[in-house]
Amino acid sequence: MTLMMPAPEPEILANRDALIALLRDILPESGLIIDETARRAFECDAFTMYRALPLVVVLPETVAQVRAIMALAAEMNVKIVPRGAGTSLSGGSMPLVDGILLGMSKFDRILEIDYDNRCARVQPGVQNLAISKAVEAKGFYYAPDPSSQIACSIGGNVAENAGGVHCLKYGLTTNNILGLEVVLMGGEIVRLGGKHLDSEAYDLMGLMTGSEGLLGVVTEVTVRILQKPAVARCLLVGFPSVNAGARFVGAVIARGVIPGGMEMMDKATIHAVERFQPCGYPLDAEAIVIVELDGAQVEVDHLVGVVEEIARSEGATTTKISNSESERLQFWAGRKNAFPAVSCIKPDYLCMDGTIPRARLPEVLEGMDALASKYGLQVANVFHAGDGNLHPLILYDASIEGDVARAEQLGFDILRLCVSVGGVLTGEHGVGVEKRDLMGEMFNEIDLDQQLRVKCAFDPMSRLNPGKVFPTLHRCAEFGMMHVVGGKTPFPEIPRF
Amino acid sequence: MTLMMPAPEPEILANRDALIALLRDILPESGLIIDETARRAFECDAFTMYRALPLVVVLPETVAQVRAIMALAAEMNVKIVPRGAGTSLSGGSMPLVDGILLGMSKFDRILEIDYDNRCARVQPGVQNLAISKAVEAKGFYYAPDPSSQIACSIGGNVAENAGGVHCLKYGLTTNNILGLEVVLMGGEIVRLGGKHLDSEAYDLMGLMTGSEGLLGVVTEVTVRILQKPAVARCLLVGFPSVNAGARFVGAVIARGVIPGGMEMMDKATIHAVERFQPCGYPLDAEAIVIVELDGAQVEVDHLVGVVEEIARSEGATTTKISNSESERLQFWAGRKNAFPAVSCIKPDYLCMDGTIPRARLPEVLEGMDALASKYGLQVANVFHAGDGNLHPLILYDASIEGDVARAEQLGFDILRLCVSVGGVLTGEHGVGVEKRDLMGEMFNEIDLDQQLRVKCAFDPMSRLNPGKVFPTLHRCAEFGMMHVVGGKTPFPEIPRF
Repeated sequence: MTLMMPAPEPEILANRDALIALLRDILPESGLIIDETARRAFECDAFTMYRALPLVVVLPETVAQVRAIMALAAEMNVKIVPRGAGTSLSGGSMPLVDGILLGMSKFDRILEIDYDNRCARVQPGVQNLAISKAVEAKGFYYAPDPSSQIACSIGGNVAENAGGVHCLKYGLTTNNILGLEVVLMGGEIVRLGGKHLDSEAYDLMGLMTGSEGLLGVVTEVTVRILQKPAVARCLLVGFPSVNAGARFVGAVIARGVIPGGMEMMDKATIHAVERFQPCGYPLDAEAIVIVELDGAQVEVDHLVGVVEEIARSEGATTTKISNSESERLQFWAGRKNAFPAVSCIKPDYLCMDGTIPRARLPEVLEGMDALASKYGLQVANVFHAGDGNLHPLILYDASIEGDVARAEQLGFDILRLCVSVGGVLTGEHGVGVEKRDLMGEMFNEIDLDQQLRVKCAFDPMSRLNPGKVFPTLHRCAEFGMMHVVGGKTPFPEIPRF
Repeated sequence: MTLMMPAPEPEILANRDALIALLRDILPESGLIIDETARRAFECDAFTMYRALPLVVVLPETVAQVRAIMALAAEMNVKIVPRGAGTSLSGGSMPLVDGILLGMSKFDRILEIDYDNRCARVQPGVQNLAISKAVEAKGFYYAPDPSSQIACSIGGNVAENAGGVHCLKYGLTTNNILGLEVVLMGGEIVRLGGKHLDSEAYDLMGLMTGSEGLLGVVTEVTVRILQKPAVARCLLVGFPSVNAGARFVGAVIARGVIPGGMEMMDKATIHAVERFQPCGYPLDAEAIVIVELDGAQVEVDHLVGVVEEIARSEGATTTKISNSESERLQFWAGRKNAFPAVSCIKPDYLCMDGTIPRARLPEVLEGMDALASKYGLQVANVFHAGDGNLHPLILYDASIEGDVARAEQLGFDILRLCVSVGGVLTGEHGVGVEKRDLMGEMFNEIDLDQQLRVKCAFDPMSRLNPGKVFPTLHRCAEFGMMHVVGGKTPFPEIPRF
């Protein structure tokens, strides 16, 4: 991939000192990272393939500071890249050499827990898992659980519409938030949603969720909290072929059972996991599926029986059922270690994130095999089988000449395959810089134009996180549409056409 | 309420014959309603308080016709009001005297049922209930069930983000659709979403859902279909006070039980229902709550026990449990008849649709009582208690001088009360013309401006359903923002600034 980022603007680089001087009026010294060594810590997020040293890093603590930084950026025509905990797998918070990196890590307070209305108001820098920890004594939790949940922030979860193992039953971030406070590029502070379900007017909260930091900076999130299910039990089911596993997944859903999680791993992953840290996965299986059922004891016991019967009729070669909490956690241990474990096979991997209509699973798996052979690479498959969200891990060795490029090309071809069966480029990791140049595979000019018109309605000068998501470096004006924010221009520096 | 609609444009009225001549090039005679008597049938929707005779009614059958009509409207600068089945309770499809009424009733085909991927592709004019009927033989259904489901269309459901009795557990329309095909005001045809969960780029499908026909015309909908639960059982629980009923509702949710439906009725409604068509509701109760539990037999039986125990500890005076399907339907019969039944008390009613955080129910009910006394009117309460969506029925007699105005004023005050406790103006009926002038109670200038910028990104000349939802008659240009759709202007008639 030849990643074209917007060319750095020499004028902005030359004005760095002036910008920093003005930032000092807004922020205390502890909220400003200027030194090059310290800025290096922010040069990439969890998509480490691409890096850039940010012009300056700011760490505001108040909404007023965020607003002032955005006003200053508008005044001096500087770009802004918002960043949560920097765990994006698609480069959503990759910095710009001529842009301010706006880190929200100091927004780390839980503002209110409202058990009566089953929600919590939190600042965007609060860790995903910290929300569940804060309410667990009363038997509650926050449902979306991305793998990075001990590190990732709820603000980043909103930006990427993060998912996790349990989103099959409990939904993505967009299904688990009730309200947002957002600072817009014009300095406006808007509150979207609240403690209620549904709302009038356009669904701007839904629009903001998953917009990857291109529409505004989230400064507060109201999340739904759920009562923890009384019981959770797991089945670990082995199959003689990946296709049989895929058919089993379809049959469980067809029976009307919605498991808390339904995860699949192929033979390569099973063997890597057992070498990394044995947890009793059947080595003779071509695929295993872990099915978690949660709810009241009586319901869970019943569903375990239903799923066990489906496993039998779909030709399972192994079926283990957890009879204790420690056994359940052991079934999951291998799945949770799957990503680090594949480094037993090859030192590096590229994790893809395509999503397909569930029924197309068998043919996509076959197609992926063929593509992997073509590129002479191996793919280990770990995926949220229940909702069709694939995480093929392309294994490579960066020290071998050409392996990185081959892995990237294979990744692109896999995503093209997903799109060709009616799927999409991403299920939960976002587009970011990683999949930006593939957006044309998914959307035509008309679609992209309308997306950009929406972007222009929020950020006409494209100052917020430019170069991400959309395969264009155009500003709204170049795109053929000009905005004149007339008498009401919030910051007089927005150019008028 | 003095409803200010945009003033009719005399030039357009004068050009009606020319417009009709050009529409004849697009549509067969059966797709064009010109005659005044025939147009009268379309002069209002289910919000019958306000009426207007449409300039002309068109009933296209193909996407190409829709596109051509929209292009012609752009060319001749004529407004368009889209209409589904005309069951909007907020006047969402109220016509304009100088606008084309675009009826989508001929888009009535189910295009595909895909059981493997648990979805169906349907045209927007398909009745809500027709989808469930089409898949019921295989044990499936479409979950959202507005009261009007035997009449309302799925396209209208999308426009209004319709709900129903079961949306507590199964979600609103926005949670039950996977894809949309939409014709935009510029003539572009965009496909949003698909057969998969989630998608990349901005969530335009979410934005379109509930946008009340202001952003585009829906020409195809991909809906999720769900497996019918094996069993459903109901509890009919009576309480000595409305507050006790409200506490019971909160306690059920607090226990982690999510009923398929949880509906509450107050004494006025109970007595009206029993007079209208007796169904065994306890006449000594101040409030009754109907709780429906659905799922596998063993789960439902367990949950019935849990809810029964909660009812006892919250001081229920009556608890009946359905032991057969006919008994379950009998419990529901009164609820389903509640709206017509209140006409036993007064000849007319105004149905409100505020939604509040569930925990504020007791104080809002008290506040409503006080307001009703102030206006000397009676309110019968029927509501989706589980999700805080209230449907107070304001009872009045249109033949009494001043009663209509008093009912409207009381309705406005009730909605202001809902907003004051952190609620919203509508749960499932939409804003339309009914609540348009209250939007300022809910949103400030900044919020509304951003909403309008989104509108402008789709419909810069405000030709699509103007006068609805937003308390402004401004066009984008007047609002202080001008769009120049440069070299790519889809229809050269869009004025350039």
